[in-house]
Amino acid sequence: MDLEKLRFLNEEEVHSIAETFGTPVFVYSESELIQRAEAARSFPNAFGITPRFAMKANPNGNILKIFRKHGIHIDASSEFEVERALHSGYSPEEILFTGQQPPSEARLREIVGRGTDYNACSLYQLELYGKCFPGTEISMRINPGLGSGGTKKTDVGGTTSSFGIWHESIPEVKEILNKYSLKVKRIHTHIGSGSDPEVWKAVAKYTLEYAEIFPETRIVNLGGGFKVGRMSDEISTDFQKIGAPVKELFLEFERKQGRKLHLEIEPGTSLVANCGSLISRIMDKVHTGPKGMKFIKLDSGMDSNTRPSLYGSRHPLIAVGKKPSGATEECVVVGHCCESGDVFTQEMGGEPMTRKLSESEIGDYMVMEGVGAYCASMSTKNYNSFPEVPEVLISEDKKIHLIRKRQELSQIFQNEILLP
Amino acid sequence: MDLEKLRFLNEEEVHSIAETFGTPVFVYSESELIQRAEAARSFPNAFGITPRFAMKANPNGNILKIFRKHGIHIDASSEFEVERALHSGYSPEEILFTGQQPPSEARLREIVGRGTDYNACSLYQLELYGKCFPGTEISMRINPGLGSGGTKKTDVGGTTSSFGIWHESIPEVKEILNKYSLKVKRIHTHIGSGSDPEVWKAVAKYTLEYAEIFPETRIVNLGGGFKVGRMSDEISTDFQKIGAPVKELFLEFERKQGRKLHLEIEPGTSLVANCGSLISRIMDKVHTGPKGMKFIKLDSGMDSNTRPSLYGSRHPLIAVGKKPSGATEECVVVGHCCESGDVFTQEMGGEPMTRKLSESEIGDYMVMEGVGAYCASMSTKNYNSFPEVPEVLISEDKKIHLIRKRQELSQIFQNEILLP
Repeated sequence: MDLEKLRFLNEEEVHSIAETFGTPVFVYSESELIQRAEAARSFPNAFGITPRFAMKANPNGNILKIFRKHGIHIDASSEFEVERALHSGYSPEEILFTGQQPPSEARLREIVGRGTDYNACSLYQLELYGKCFPGTEISMRINPGLGSGGTKKTDVGGTTSSFGIWHESIPEVKEILNKYSLKVKRIHTHIGSGSDPEVWKAVAKYTLEYAEIFPETRIVNLGGGFKVGRMSDEISTDFQKIGAPVKELFLEFERKQGRKLHLEIEPGTSLVANCGSLISRIMDKVHTGPKGMKFIKLDSGMDSNTRPSLYGSRHPLIAVGKKPSGATEECVVVGHCCESGDVFTQEMGGEPMTRKLSESEIGDYMVMEGVGAYCASMSTKNYNSFPEVPEVLISEDKKIHLIRKRQELSQIFQNEILLP
Repeated sequence: MDLEKLRFLNEEEVHSIAETFGTPVFVYSESELIQRAEAARSFPNAFGITPRFAMKANPNGNILKIFRKHGIHIDASSEFEVERALHSGYSPEEILFTGQQPPSEARLREIVGRGTDYNACSLYQLELYGKCFPGTEISMRINPGLGSGGTKKTDVGGTTSSFGIWHESIPEVKEILNKYSLKVKRIHTHIGSGSDPEVWKAVAKYTLEYAEIFPETRIVNLGGGFKVGRMSDEISTDFQKIGAPVKELFLEFERKQGRKLHLEIEPGTSLVANCGSLISRIMDKVHTGPKGMKFIKLDSGMDSNTRPSLYGSRHPLIAVGKKPSGATEECVVVGHCCESGDVFTQEMGGEPMTRKLSESEIGDYMVMEGVGAYCASMSTKNYNSFPEVPEVLISEDKKIHLIRKRQELSQIFQNEILLP
C-alpha cells in the first residue's frame, strides 16, 4: 500500500503547532468543516433539506458555532447535548432531541417549552410526551425492521437494535396518538446505511410508508451513518449518488400523495471525521527481535482515540521528522497507556498489525488523520491519568486558535472528596 | 444459568444510596477492599512480599488511602499517576513508575530525585536513566518472549507485545549498564498470566533467569494480570495456588545462588474489581416484536463502563424493584448512549445477547457488579455529554460517604475557549 499523506496540514504547520501548544494536540480545519457543511446542504432533495449535525461526534462549541453559521442544525442525543448546543449559540428551534434515555417529565417540559423538537424513540417516550403536551405535534423514530429480512448492511435497524419504535407497534402508536390528540409531523429513521445508493433507496422507501400512514407528516428524517473513508483505500459516501434516488422517491410521493416532504439528514462522521488531525510525538522505538516486530510509541493513546481499540478502525499515520530520508519501515504504532489493547494499528480482533511508514526517529512527530469524529468526544479520557488533550482550530484566514486548553492534572480529580 | 446475586449491597442499601445520591452511582466497599489487600499481602513468598496496586484500575484517592493503610504500595503507569498517588498520601518511596511513555529528562530527575523507583521499560528509557543517574541502581522490565514458543495464555509477553526490553537485547542492556555504571536491583516482568499455576511457575522461572544474569538483583516483580471472575461461572485466581510454586522457585534460587529475593506483585483487577457496584435506573423497556428481543434501557452506558463494548466482558446484572415477583425475563441490557455498540450484554464480536433477569419495570434499579476495576477509570467519559458519575464508599463502619461528586455539565467543557 502507498504511504498516506497529510490531509490539510503541511509539515511546517505540524512543527509550529506542536512547538506552540505541545503534543499531543488535536487540530481542526475551519475550511474543511465549511466544505463538509456545504456538501451536506447540497444533498439532493425535492422540497428542501435540513442537515443536522450529530453533535456527539464532536461537541466542541467552536465547531458547533461554525456549523450554525453555515446552515447546519443539531441532532442532540441527550438532554446535556441540548444544553451544550444552546451554550454555543444555537437557538432551541434548531435542535432536535433524539435520545435513548428519556428525560424526566420536568426536563421534557423545560426543553420542549423553550422550543426544541422532541423525537419520541419508544412507546414510553411517546406516552410521556403526550402527557406533557396533549393536542400538539410530535416527531417519532421508527425502527422499520430492515435487516431482519432486508440486507446485511442495514442490520443495525433490525430486531437486534433497541433504537426507535418497532414497526409492528404502529397500532399502539395510534392508540397513544389518539389518547393525547397528537399529530405526527416528523418521521425519523436511522439505520446506519453506509454508502450504497440501493440501500439508501430502500431506507427512504420504507420510511415514506410511515409518512403515508401518518398523514400530517411534513418532515422525513433519514438519520445518518454516512460512511467516510479515512484511509486512501476506503470509500466515502457520495451525497449526490445516494441522494439522487431518495429525491426521486420524494417527488413520486408528492405526485401520489400531494404532499411536499421536507428532508432531514443527520451526518456526524461525514461532517467532521476528515476535518481533524492529531499531532503526537514519537517517544520511543522498540523491537522484539529479528523474528518479531518494530514498534513506535507515541505520547497519545486510546485516551485520545479509542476507535482502533473499539472497532479495529484504521487512521492514516504520517511521520513528520526534521529530515525526510525517503526510506520506509514496517512498524506497529502503539499508544502510551499500559494496556495491551492500546495499539493504533490493529486488526478487528485486536491483533497488532504493522504499517508501512516513512522512517522516523524518537522526537519526530506522528500525525494521525481522520480524527475529527468520535475521538475527542468518545475516548477513554484520563485513562492512566493522562490529561485531556488540547484542541486547536485553523480558521479560514489560516490563523491558529486554541479552542480547548490542555487539562490540568488537578482537574481530573477535582470532584473527589478525600476523607480524613 | 442461575440469576446473579447482589455482592456486598443489600436491596435496602440500593434504594437508599440511589435516593440519596441519584443514579447512576458507583459504590465501593471498604471491607471488601481491605479483604483483597490482605489476600494480596498473604501471597505465598519465601523472603518477603510487596504488593503494588496497579492504580490505573481505579485511582480514586480514597481507594489509594485505604490500600496505603493496609500495606499496599503503588504501580504507577504514568508520571501523572505518580503525582496522584503522592496527592493521596503515598510517600515517593512507595511508588514504582513503570510507563510506556518515558518522561522528559527534567521530570525523570524530579520524580527519582524525590525517591520514587523508576522501572526502565526500553533501551531508550535505560539510557535516559543512566544519563541522569550514573553510578546508581536501576529497575528493568524484561519481555521474556513467552508466547512466541511458550503457551497461548501468555501471548501478551511475546513478539507482538511492545512492553519491556526484548530478552534478546541483553547484550545492549549490559553495554548501557557498563557505560553508566548502573546496577540492576529489580527485574520486572508482566505478561498477563491468568489463573493457571503452571503458567505462573513458568513466568517465575524465566524471570529468575534474569535475576541470575544480573547478580545484584534483590527484587523480582512478576507484575499482575490475575484473572478475576465477575460472573458466577467465571474462575478467580487463587493466590495461594499460583503462589506456592513461585515460592518454591525462590527457595531453590536461594539454595543455588545464595540470594534471598524479595517478591513484588502488581494486582489491579484482583484488588478492586469485585469491590465496586454501579447502581443505575431502568429508564425504558422496548422490544422488536415476537421474533425479536426485549431490551432494558439504563441511565448509564459505555460512558461509565466501556468493558463490554471493548472486550465483550460480562458483568452480573441484578434488577432491584419495589416488589420482587419471582418471575424472570430474557432481556438485552443497553446503555443510554446513541451508539449501536453501547450494549452491556453482548458477545465478543458485538452481537447483542439476552440475559435471564428478575422481571423489572421502568423506574426499578439495576445493579451491575464487578465494576471496581477499569470502569470509572477507563470509560468513554462524557460521550453523548453525559457527566461523570459520582462515587460512594461504604466504610468499614457501614457509613456511606460521597467520595466523588457528580460532574457538572459546565465542567465537561470548562477548558473550551469560545471564539467570538
